[in-house]
Amino acid sequence: MSSKFPNTRVRRHPERGRYDPETIYGIIDEAWHCHVAAVRDNLPVVIPTLHVRIDDQLYIHGAVAAGLFKDMGRETPISVAITHLDGLVLARSLYNHSANYRSVVIFGIAREVVDADEKMAVFHALADRIALGRWEDARIPNDIEVRTTRVFAIPLDQASAKIRSGPPADDPEDMDRATWAGVLPLRATYSTPIADPQQVPAIPLPDYLTRLVTPDA
Amino acid sequence: MSSKFPNTRVRRHPERGRYDPETIYGIIDEAWHCHVAAVRDNLPVVIPTLHVRIDDQLYIHGAVAAGLFKDMGRETPISVAITHLDGLVLARSLYNHSANYRSVVIFGIAREVVDADEKMAVFHALADRIALGRWEDARIPNDIEVRTTRVFAIPLDQASAKIRSGPPADDPEDMDRATWAGVLPLRATYSTPIADPQQVPAIPLPDYLTRLVTPDA
Repeated sequence: MSSKFPNTRVRRHPERGRYDPETIYGIIDEAWHCHVAAVRDNLPVVIPTLHVRIDDQLYIHGAVAAGLFKDMGRETPISVAITHLDGLVLARSLYNHSANYRSVVIFGIAREVVDADEKMAVFHALADRIALGRWEDARIPNDIEVRTTRVFAIPLDQASAKIRSGPPADDPEDMDRATWAGVLPLRATYSTPIADPQQVPAIPLPDYLTRLVTPDA
Repeated sequence: MSSKFPNTRVRRHPERGRYDPETIYGIIDEAWHCHVAAVRDNLPVVIPTLHVRIDDQLYIHGAVAAGLFKDMGRETPISVAITHLDGLVLARSLYNHSANYRSVVIFGIAREVVDADEKMAVFHALADRIALGRWEDARIPNDIEVRTTRVFAIPLDQASAKIRSGPPADDPEDMDRATWAGVLPLRATYSTPIADPQQVPAIPLPDYLTRLVTPDA
């Protein structure tokens, strides 16, 4: 473990900090995308990208030519944040307005994955992440595609989660105010799948995707 | 304009780049939260936070004691990313799987706002951002609350947007494959507001919030 990285303990609202892998992995696995920050010419750069977790490693990938990835060496210090915004918290005072959220912040050295088998395992995990069944259904990457995609692994041993949930926390002197207080919950939902208009002949949505987009069915 | 910052032109998929304020501001204004990256001890740090835009400035705020904000000086180089994930793009080949998204990446010097009136204008904008009517309904910040909240302004003159939309782009040789291809749209939606259980007497959800959570009503 690198000792150069900052302490991963949550400093502000320490009661919101969580450090167990189950919580951290759960937040990571539920998210489709993350935000990756690196230092370029002594300045910070942050971009969104897709990710997948395998065991205690987070994997991100991008085209060889892509902005941030183009600049990353074999070992690059990065920070990654993954955030689920679960709701707006409306308090009686504006000062105590907040958000309900579950976030993970990761520090680590991103190691470029150069082994073709490890790369392929990441692509397989990315397909499984969409839905079990996608790997078997779609065409798997060929040698050129594997070579032109850069994959980076970040160990998850310097990660922390921060969670806020529940109602607003107002000051006692504001409790009698006639202001509606509570939570406006937010969540990401699927809407109706849109088949590629070029899809000929019409191929029905496979079961593994139907289950994904209608989780209550 | 600082010339030290990287070129904000989109390098990978340049056809997805947008530089007009209307597009950039629209993406910023629709989002509740952003990811802010800074450099600390030569290492990148990224955290989620809430934001609001006023004209050509992005404002972020946090408690004086909060992690990243505690470390930020009066002028700190930062990068901010705001991302809407609009859908998963499922291609016939795994390599061409993608995401539909609208993102903005901003580079700039975060300037600490120390003027109480400018700070109050930001708090007002944050309340209006939730819904017009919230500022008049809730208790506005008092002097101590204004002092213990740090606010930073980032100019939006070095920002770029990147947008992907539409169906998958498969290679010609994959087009006849019997794999379902298309888009699984994602969107953030409100669910039923949850009143604070301590709310006494029962206060009905005000009209300005009812309109927010039921936009189609």
